[in-house]
Amino acid sequence: MVEVVHMIDSEVFLAFSTYATIVILKMMFMSLMTGYMRVSKQAFSNLEDTAMAKGEDKKKLVRIDPDVERVRRCHLNDLESIVPFVLIGLLYALTGPVLSTALLHFRVFVASRFIHTVAYTMALPQPTRGLAFGVGLLTTLSMAYRVLTTALFL
Amino acid sequence: MVEVVHMIDSEVFLAFSTYATIVILKMMFMSLMTGYMRVSKQAFSNLEDTAMAKGEDKKKLVRIDPDVERVRRCHLNDLESIVPFVLIGLLYALTGPVLSTALLHFRVFVASRFIHTVAYTMALPQPTRGLAFGVGLLTTLSMAYRVLTTALFL
Amino acid sequence: MVEVVHMIDSEVFLAFSTYATIVILKMMFMSLMTGYMRVSKQAFSNLEDTAMAKGEDKKKLVRIDPDVERVRRCHLNDLESIVPFVLIGLLYALTGPVLSTALLHFRVFVASRFIHTVAYTMALPQPTRGLAFGVGLLTTLSMAYRVLTTALFL
Repeated sequence: MVEVVHMIDSEVFLAFSTYATIVILKMMFMSLMTGYMRVSKQAFSNLEDTAMAKGEDKKKLVRIDPDVERVRRCHLNDLESIVPFVLIGLLYALTGPVLSTALLHFRVFVASRFIHTVAYTMALPQPTRGLAFGVGLLTTLSMAYRVLTTALFL
Repeated sequence: MVEVVHMIDSEVFLAFSTYATIVILKMMFMSLMTGYMRVSKQAFSNLEDTAMAKGEDKKKLVRIDPDVERVRRCHLNDLESIVPFVLIGLLYALTGPVLSTALLHFRVFVASRFIHTVAYTMALPQPTRGLAFGVGLLTTLSMAYRVLTTALFL
Repeated sequence: MVEVVHMIDSEVFLAFSTYATIVILKMMFMSLMTGYMRVSKQAFSNLEDTAMAKGEDKKKLVRIDPDVERVRRCHLNDLESIVPFVLIGLLYALTGPVLSTALLHFRVFVASRFIHTVAYTMALPQPTRGLAFGVGLLTTLSMAYRVLTTALFL
């Protein structure tokens, strides 16, 4: 992490900012998708959310729907995968990696998560989703390895 | 992101640090609230957690309580909303926005999340909670837009 | 946060990068542990995940297993605790704390989370897990206090 100060203005940091923002936006999109699914499947988690719904027995609309749960699991997997990528990626970007190597990490990770989302929400046959998850995990581990070998201070 | 190095010492970065810390503390408070609810409603998720509880049949205390679940959903929504705000907000603060604009984003977001928590835990009628969530989402999207238009490097 | 720019190259920032990466890796390990448990207990959350499993009635393998759920609760608690630590710790590292004080915070937090994971996954008697969680929470609160008293800009 020598001359980190110069790095924060670098193309690596700009690339990190771009890909991190894109993949966080993808994660936030899952909130909207959950909301859309809840309305279209009429399956809510709170009684007060059913006020706009049709029908008389609103309590029956507070229920668990398998398609809503699928979107929620996908969202939770995003939290478990994308947040570590952004946090470790920020530190990685400050270690001054070569631009082409950094771009490779960022692009592979972001692509893997878009594939993961499609595979999960459309229930594609395995191992599509498993591979997408694994590739994203390996990308993050590779960045973590560089952070630890560059910045190690215990 | 020109002259980002000077920005990290700026009032915008101090303001970001302040509001980000406040809203993360609010999120962490949900852990304590969950713990309090679990004890007061005697509804635990692990058998070993019931050791201090009264009564003979401790297995019956490993159960799901609707009020505990409400607090947990509020906490999860915090994770899905506040973590993206802090991550995108950090990059946004480094793009050198005008102080008044940045303060507006930070204040609106933090206020929206406090309102969201009150609306969720007290089960206020919709669309209170939905609006609070939506305002927070739009604030984060607005910051993401600036990051992408300022730093775009694909 | 005076002269923050010099701080980002400091030993405090290197130490933060090291401990943050270690504890994020620990959190990511929970994903692998969940996957391992799902296969070994034959309890999946999606029908497409059962393709590799033995037996004829695959629908019965889409089920909830208490040991899998335990690992998942531990993972979720990591998200709720470790992500705030890393976000607040980053801001804390930029306030220019004394190295020994910063190391104390980082080491205590990381140790508390490893103890928490062992206590949760092995279902150790309370208050082991509760204490580990509380110590980690207090460490993060202590860093948040320094960020707010150093950077306060409302």
